[in-house]
Amino acid sequence: MNILIKNITLVPMDGKDEILSNMNILIENDKIKDIFKDDKDLKVDKIIDGKNKLLMPGLINSHTHTGMSIFRNYADDLPLHEWLNVAIWPLEAKLVAEDVYWASKLSIVEMIQSGTTTFSDMYFFMDETAKAVGETGIRSVLSRGIADENDPIKNAAKFDEVRKMHKDWHNAFDGRIKVMVGPHAPYTCGTDFLKECVSVAKELNTGIHIHLSETKKEVEDSFEIHELSPIEYAKEIGIFDVHTLAAHCVVLSQEDIEIIRDNNVYPVNNPGSNFKLASGFAKVDEILSKGIPMALGTDSSSSNNNLNMFEEINLAALVNKSVTEDATSVSAYQALEMATINGAKALNLQDEVGSIEVGKKADMILIDLNVSHLYPRNNLISALAYSAQGSDVDTVIIDGKIVMEDKKILNIDLNEIFSQVERIISEIPTR
Amino acid sequence: MNILIKNITLVPMDGKDEILSNMNILIENDKIKDIFKDDKDLKVDKIIDGKNKLLMPGLINSHTHTGMSIFRNYADDLPLHEWLNVAIWPLEAKLVAEDVYWASKLSIVEMIQSGTTTFSDMYFFMDETAKAVGETGIRSVLSRGIADENDPIKNAAKFDEVRKMHKDWHNAFDGRIKVMVGPHAPYTCGTDFLKECVSVAKELNTGIHIHLSETKKEVEDSFEIHELSPIEYAKEIGIFDVHTLAAHCVVLSQEDIEIIRDNNVYPVNNPGSNFKLASGFAKVDEILSKGIPMALGTDSSSSNNNLNMFEEINLAALVNKSVTEDATSVSAYQALEMATINGAKALNLQDEVGSIEVGKKADMILIDLNVSHLYPRNNLISALAYSAQGSDVDTVIIDGKIVMEDKKILNIDLNEIFSQVERIISEIPTR
Repeated sequence: MNILIKNITLVPMDGKDEILSNMNILIENDKIKDIFKDDKDLKVDKIIDGKNKLLMPGLINSHTHTGMSIFRNYADDLPLHEWLNVAIWPLEAKLVAEDVYWASKLSIVEMIQSGTTTFSDMYFFMDETAKAVGETGIRSVLSRGIADENDPIKNAAKFDEVRKMHKDWHNAFDGRIKVMVGPHAPYTCGTDFLKECVSVAKELNTGIHIHLSETKKEVEDSFEIHELSPIEYAKEIGIFDVHTLAAHCVVLSQEDIEIIRDNNVYPVNNPGSNFKLASGFAKVDEILSKGIPMALGTDSSSSNNNLNMFEEINLAALVNKSVTEDATSVSAYQALEMATINGAKALNLQDEVGSIEVGKKADMILIDLNVSHLYPRNNLISALAYSAQGSDVDTVIIDGKIVMEDKKILNIDLNEIFSQVERIISEIPTR
Repeated sequence: MNILIKNITLVPMDGKDEILSNMNILIENDKIKDIFKDDKDLKVDKIIDGKNKLLMPGLINSHTHTGMSIFRNYADDLPLHEWLNVAIWPLEAKLVAEDVYWASKLSIVEMIQSGTTTFSDMYFFMDETAKAVGETGIRSVLSRGIADENDPIKNAAKFDEVRKMHKDWHNAFDGRIKVMVGPHAPYTCGTDFLKECVSVAKELNTGIHIHLSETKKEVEDSFEIHELSPIEYAKEIGIFDVHTLAAHCVVLSQEDIEIIRDNNVYPVNNPGSNFKLASGFAKVDEILSKGIPMALGTDSSSSNNNLNMFEEINLAALVNKSVTEDATSVSAYQALEMATINGAKALNLQDEVGSIEVGKKADMILIDLNVSHLYPRNNLISALAYSAQGSDVDTVIIDGKIVMEDKKILNIDLNEIFSQVERIISEIPTR
């Protein structure tokens, strides 16, 4: 199928901080075939009028837990460790596979509606999330979140589950799913377990997705146990021998930042979740200044409490200026890079997505510019970072297929998803 | 005219942190006539079905400059003093009255669409803003922003302008406009000028709207010139003898906070603008803990860059937790209070608006709950603060009149506003 998007304002996010007017984008099957200025006489299956719209790469949510949407607004205003131990983990223990299917579907719909075309997930019952990815048309990197059971037989079973997941889903749905190995965090996994994760990642020729340096407590505990920061420890035991997606990275020393710069580690900033759980302010400006392509993620909607990447872009661009006391730090363009091309690098998908360039996958979003908060159009890069809303996303194309048009998600029954998640959360406490 | 809203979820914001289901609200003319649970046989002019909707008080934007929407995204990523001196003030000097009419109208439309029913403004050409308030149906407190000209004749003319503005517009449009006296800031007004402002406010039996303690530089300069903080200085010269709306209050000492608590001063937090201009983090938690009803505002859309109060609520609820390193600080309900009842107190309108109670003005918004990011409905107070979007506002009622219904602003030509502001910003540089 061919799609021609005509006469649109383009923000390609290809490294040049620029806005191109009156552009045409030709999509052939799953790829961007051509980007051109002047009209051409082309026979295509579908034409989209770009008037009053802006086209940019689909957003990349580099760290989330889609299955947790069931717990959105469930236990707020608690610190991370209490929130996990008292509120969330006892409920999670009662989840069944089908719950994760509906929770994932709710999360995916929410992400598509607010402009996300790729997400990186870490949770369990991942077959269910994979099924939801297949049905909804979104792109994803899935990791079965695993923790050390301190039991060789149980651990071996988990690694087999990871291998099976990779076999069943890696490259499924025309390559829309990739699979990584997902050890939860150094504080829930022993050294041998983490080393085994690296072995399995090497065996499967894939990367590691892990939580690192999220809180002060985690870093203090790490020094107490290992006499190393979580980043130093991860390097020491060989995690960074494979491509590593490191969620959070809030509490970093200068040495930690240099280790990240010099190794195969891709940090993900999760400002909404970090602020809400009082985990603090990541050194985003310093990390970006060192040439590290820090990515951006929402974390789960139970600690955020939504999956709207335009909110994360806004938080990254706004709040860091007050952290550094420098209004020029983390520019609008840098914040947009975090949510697009940096995300692609973090997920090792930089050859496929993250920018609008000929030959890349056709993952893109159209923003409706004809709304009060985007007038006047003084600078549309700034407008995207500071003024735009997830709800301004009008059309979403993933892998060359239109999954949302005129703000309507195609081929998905939203009300069924809504009633299923209401049923599930009402049932869980009495299970 | 009578309106009955049936069977709706109600968050009254009347001091009790509660959510009431299946409520009915009867509006008679401009007031809330009745709030009741069981169905009554009533003859009314209009019925609104509340199914899948939530009703709460209209939001109160306690500090903005609606005329500045022309400059949205115009000069970003600059610190406050450079942004004002280099970018904004030279352009403002070229504004004509009609520009402010269209800019105000753009701002008002944006505010209504995102749930604001009352705003407090400080700018110039305020007759134009007053006209826009009249036409759009919104409620406002208007202050002609004045600075010291160091010239007795010019200053006297300004005070006469303030008196005329009060005469012309105070209580206009069924009381939808109130007028305050608006000295810009202690760093742009001399002591005698500020004292004269207080005299005029007393003469007109109204309050003062002023910027106070916005930046570290302002506070340092104040100590250098007056040997007092801006708050101490304002108290010393008698500003707090009248009701004072104090915008920003970012950089406060313990003594400053105690002065605010013990005097007739109502601070307004403007997190989006403060973060973006690198002004820092207001001590919101400490201020609220001292019993001070801190309000919330967007500041102008040229330093934010939008007028979406749901974003400010989210920022206030999220970011302060990481500032205090306490995930329980500034709860969802407190953040909502800042944007409703605290705003009403700050604007001296607490008997009229800010909560849903019988006898108050019918200023209210209906939120569409049937959207992916508000499922499941575990806690709707949290959902409003952490998950909701300005774009979820479905219906807006101000002074008993429906000004937006099903997301459509009534009786206003949006495209005319959009094309006028584009024309104005294209003309200004060559004027």
